[in-house]
Amino acid sequence: MSSNQLIIFDTTLRDGEQSPGAAMTKEEKIRVARQLERLGVDVIEAGFAAASPGDFDAISSIANIIKDSTICSLARANEKDIARAGEAIRHANRGRVHTFIATSPIHMQHKLRMSEDQVVEQAVKAIGWARQYTDDVEFSAEDAARSDMDFLVRIFDAVIQAGVKTINVPDTVGYMIPELWGARFKALLERVPNSDKVIWSTHCHNDLGMAVANSLAAVQNGARQVECTINGLGERAGNASLEEIVMATRVRKDLFDVTTNIRSEEIVPTSRLVSTITGYVVQPNKAIVGANAFAHESGIHQDGVLKHRETYEIMRAEDVGWKTNKLTLGKLSGRAAFRARLDEIGIAIESDEHLNELFRRFKDLADRKAEIFDEDLHALASGQDTLTAKYQLKELEVTSKTGQTPRAHLLLTVDGKDAAAAESGSGPVDAVFKAIEVIAKSKATLELYQVNAITSGTDSQGEVLVRLNKDGRIVTGQGADTDIVIASAKAYLSALNWLGTQAKTNPQKDEATAI
Amino acid sequence: MSSNQLIIFDTTLRDGEQSPGAAMTKEEKIRVARQLERLGVDVIEAGFAAASPGDFDAISSIANIIKDSTICSLARANEKDIARAGEAIRHANRGRVHTFIATSPIHMQHKLRMSEDQVVEQAVKAIGWARQYTDDVEFSAEDAARSDMDFLVRIFDAVIQAGVKTINVPDTVGYMIPELWGARFKALLERVPNSDKVIWSTHCHNDLGMAVANSLAAVQNGARQVECTINGLGERAGNASLEEIVMATRVRKDLFDVTTNIRSEEIVPTSRLVSTITGYVVQPNKAIVGANAFAHESGIHQDGVLKHRETYEIMRAEDVGWKTNKLTLGKLSGRAAFRARLDEIGIAIESDEHLNELFRRFKDLADRKAEIFDEDLHALASGQDTLTAKYQLKELEVTSKTGQTPRAHLLLTVDGKDAAAAESGSGPVDAVFKAIEVIAKSKATLELYQVNAITSGTDSQGEVLVRLNKDGRIVTGQGADTDIVIASAKAYLSALNWLGTQAKTNPQKDEATAI
Repeated sequence: MSSNQLIIFDTTLRDGEQSPGAAMTKEEKIRVARQLERLGVDVIEAGFAAASPGDFDAISSIANIIKDSTICSLARANEKDIARAGEAIRHANRGRVHTFIATSPIHMQHKLRMSEDQVVEQAVKAIGWARQYTDDVEFSAEDAARSDMDFLVRIFDAVIQAGVKTINVPDTVGYMIPELWGARFKALLERVPNSDKVIWSTHCHNDLGMAVANSLAAVQNGARQVECTINGLGERAGNASLEEIVMATRVRKDLFDVTTNIRSEEIVPTSRLVSTITGYVVQPNKAIVGANAFAHESGIHQDGVLKHRETYEIMRAEDVGWKTNKLTLGKLSGRAAFRARLDEIGIAIESDEHLNELFRRFKDLADRKAEIFDEDLHALASGQDTLTAKYQLKELEVTSKTGQTPRAHLLLTVDGKDAAAAESGSGPVDAVFKAIEVIAKSKATLELYQVNAITSGTDSQGEVLVRLNKDGRIVTGQGADTDIVIASAKAYLSALNWLGTQAKTNPQKDEATAI
Repeated sequence: MSSNQLIIFDTTLRDGEQSPGAAMTKEEKIRVARQLERLGVDVIEAGFAAASPGDFDAISSIANIIKDSTICSLARANEKDIARAGEAIRHANRGRVHTFIATSPIHMQHKLRMSEDQVVEQAVKAIGWARQYTDDVEFSAEDAARSDMDFLVRIFDAVIQAGVKTINVPDTVGYMIPELWGARFKALLERVPNSDKVIWSTHCHNDLGMAVANSLAAVQNGARQVECTINGLGERAGNASLEEIVMATRVRKDLFDVTTNIRSEEIVPTSRLVSTITGYVVQPNKAIVGANAFAHESGIHQDGVLKHRETYEIMRAEDVGWKTNKLTLGKLSGRAAFRARLDEIGIAIESDEHLNELFRRFKDLADRKAEIFDEDLHALASGQDTLTAKYQLKELEVTSKTGQTPRAHLLLTVDGKDAAAAESGSGPVDAVFKAIEVIAKSKATLELYQVNAITSGTDSQGEVLVRLNKDGRIVTGQGADTDIVIASAKAYLSALNWLGTQAKTNPQKDEATAI
C-alpha cells in the first residue's frame, strides 16, 4: 500500500445504525453493504457481533457475500466479544477485528473502574485474542480526544508490540477542533515507537459541526484511514460524512496528497439508499448530497450572467452521481428486465417465490404509475414478506371531507384471521392509526411520522415512515403506495410487525459501544 | 467594544433567503428578525435593498421595528445600490451598509471585466457613498479565498483609509480548509496597515463541509465578526451555521477567548421558526438543532450504565433551548391569553381584524386538537389572508379506498366566484392537485411536496409545503390542517396565490449578490 493511499472505513452499518430508529434488517444491511462495495469502500464495519445473534448473523452474511471490501466487526477488549467478532468474519475474503477500550480518565474511572496498568494489560491481551482469528486487527482508544497524551503513547506502543495493524484515535464526544486534532496526530506519530509500522486512523463525531475538518486535519498530519458514515449518520449529531471527506480531498488535491478508491459517481445513489432504508432525511443544504448542494438560486442560471463556469463551481454535480435517477422500467417491462435491474441496484433475489412476489408488487405499481425509478424498486424491496407478517392490510376506506370528522373503516388480517375496526380521528391518518390500535392494542408511542416523496411527479409513490417506541425499543416501519393514507396504514402495520420480531432491533447497546 | 467580543452577524434573511424556494414575505421576515433580536444577534443583514421594491420595503420595515440589533443592507459597489441600502436603513436605531466587489482574478476578469486598479477605485468610492448614510460601513471582497494576497492587502488598506469600520473576508465558493483560512487572517492582520482600526469578519460557505471550522479558525486568528445563518441555511450547501459557531466557542471557551451576546436558550426556537417559514427541514443528525443532537441510542440511557453524566455529554440540551415546546394554549384559552402568547413568540398583530381572523382559526383548530403548541401558532400565522386571496378552498371530498382509484371533488372560489372540478389521481393528493389544476391552469411544475408533522401526538396538525416553479420563479406555499389531504390542498392553493403576487419573490439575483 502506497503511503498516499487513504483508506475509507465506513461504519454506517455499525455507528450509523446506533441512531435511534435506524436499525436495519439483515436484508437491508446486505443491500447497503453491496452498495458500499460498489462505491469502493475499503473497509465495511458491518456491526458489533457480540451485541446480539441478529448482529452476528448480519456480519457473517455480509462477510460471505462481499468480496472487494474488508469486512470488520467491532468488539470490546474481552475474550468473549473478540471470539464472536472473529467467528462472524471467518468466511470473509478479508476480515478485520476491531477491538477497543476507553483511555480517558473520566471513562477509565467512572465506566471501566480500571487503572491505567489494567487498561494497557487488557488491550494487549485483546490484540492477542484477535490475532487468533485474523492478522488484520484494529485497536481504538475510546475517548482518545480527552485522554492523556503520555498514556496514549504508552498504550499505543504496547498494542503495536502486540501486533496490531491499525490504530484508531476517536473523538468520541465530538469535542475537538482541527488545529488540536492535527497536532495530536503529529505528536503521536512522532512519539509512539514504530509508529510507521501501523496505519493511523481517525474517527470523529460532529457535535460541534467539525467532524469533517477534524478528520482532514488528521489526514494532513499522517492519518491514512478515516472512519466515516454515509450522510454523516450516527448517534447524536453523527459521524464525519464520507462524501464530504472524499470530495474535499479530491477538490483540494493541491492540499491533500492522498488518493482513495471511492467511485465518486456512486455517492448520491448510496446516500439515497441509506436515507430510504433508515428513514433519516438529508437536509437540502447538506454538502455534496443535499438536494440544493449544486443548485444556485434560479436567477443566476437563468439571466445568462454566468459567464464562466468556475466562477461559482468547485466541483461538478455529475461527479458525485447526481442525475443518475433515470427512468428504468415501466408497465411493459418483463420479468427478465425487472430481475436484471434489481441485480444492478443491489437487491438480491433469494428464491423464485421472492422474485414472484416482488414482480407482482412491481406490476401492481406499474398499473398506477407510468415511470418506475430505482427508488421505487428499493421501496418495493423494503416491504416485509406480506405472506408471513402478523398484521396485514386487507381493506381500508377513509374520506377526507372539509367540515367533517374523518372515520376510517379498516379490515386487517391478524395471524391469518380477519379483524375489523372503525374509528374517527382528527385527520384520515389519525383515524387509521386509531383503528389499527383498536385491533392491535400495542400501546406503542408514535415517535415519528414522516412522508417522503421519493420520486418526482405528482403520481409519485409516497413513502411513509412510522417510528414506534415500545418500552424503549424503537422500530421504523415503511409503507409505499401512490395513496398517502394507504401508505401510512402500511407503514404503521410494518412497524407493528417489526415490533413482533427480533429483526430491526438495535443491538443491546451500552456505553461500551459508543466509540 | 472589548477585543474578545465576537460579533454575530446573521444573514439568514439575505444569504439564507437566496436558497431556492426560501423566499419569505415581509411579515415572515419581520417575525424572523424579531426572533433574531431576542436571540441576541448583533447585526441582522435584512436583505439587498436594490434587488426589488419588496426587499427594500422589508429592510425598511425591519429597521423601524428592531431596536437592539444593528440592521444591515447589502449593496454592490455602485452609487445606486448604496443609495437604496442607505435609504432602507435610514430609520434604524443602528444601521449598516454592507458593500462589496469581487477581488479574485476569475471574477474580476469574467464577471466584472475590470482591472485591479479599477476595482480598488470603485471600492474606495463605494465607501464614500455609503458614509453619506451611516458611519457603520462594511466592505466585502467577494471570492477573497481565491484572491491574490497582495491585492487583498492593497484594497483593504485603501478601504480602511476611506473610513470603513468592518472588513469581511468571504470564502464565496466554500473552497477553504481551516489551516489555510486561519493563516490568511493572520497574514492580513499583520500586513494590512492599521488593521487594528477595523473589525475583521469571516463569511464561509459549506460546500466541502468545513464552513464552521473555517470560521472558527478565522476567529482564532483575529476575526471578531462571524457571518452565519440559522440552520446553516444558504445557497448550495449553505453558510456557516450560527448555532454551531456559538456553541463551539462556548463549549471550548478554553480555546476561544471570545464571548457573544447570544442567549443560547433561544437557539432551538429560532431554528424551528426559520425551518417552519422557509420549508427547509433540519436533518435529525444536524449538530445542536437536529432532533437527535442530544439523543443517545436508547440502550445507553435505559440500562443504567450511564454512571457519570460527562462521559458522553459536552453540553446540555436545555442550554440551547430544547424542551421549551411546552403546552401553551387549549380550547378554553381566551382572547387575552391568545394575544399574549402571540406577542411572546414574536407574531405581530397588525389590526383588530387580523387578531379576529387568527383567533377564529385558533378556535377552529382547538376544537379538533387538544394541545396547541407554539408551532401551531406559527403555522396559523403563516396562512395568507384568506379573505383576499385569489384561490380559496370551499369544499373538498376525496376517499382513500384500497383497490379503488381516488377521485377528488373540489369546490374553490376564484376571485370570489365558485368553481368546481372533479379529477381522479393515483392517490388522494394527486387527485386534489389535478382537480385544482383543471381550474387554475397554472402550468406550474411541482418541485417539492413535503409533509412536516409539526407537533407531536397522533392528532398533530400536519403542515404541508408545496413548492411550485413557474417559468423559473419558485414559490413555497404552506397549508396546515389536522387532515393531511386538506392541508395539501391548502398548500397548493397557497403556492398558487403567492405566484399571483409580488410577495415571496426571490429578489432578482445575479451573480453579484453571491458573496
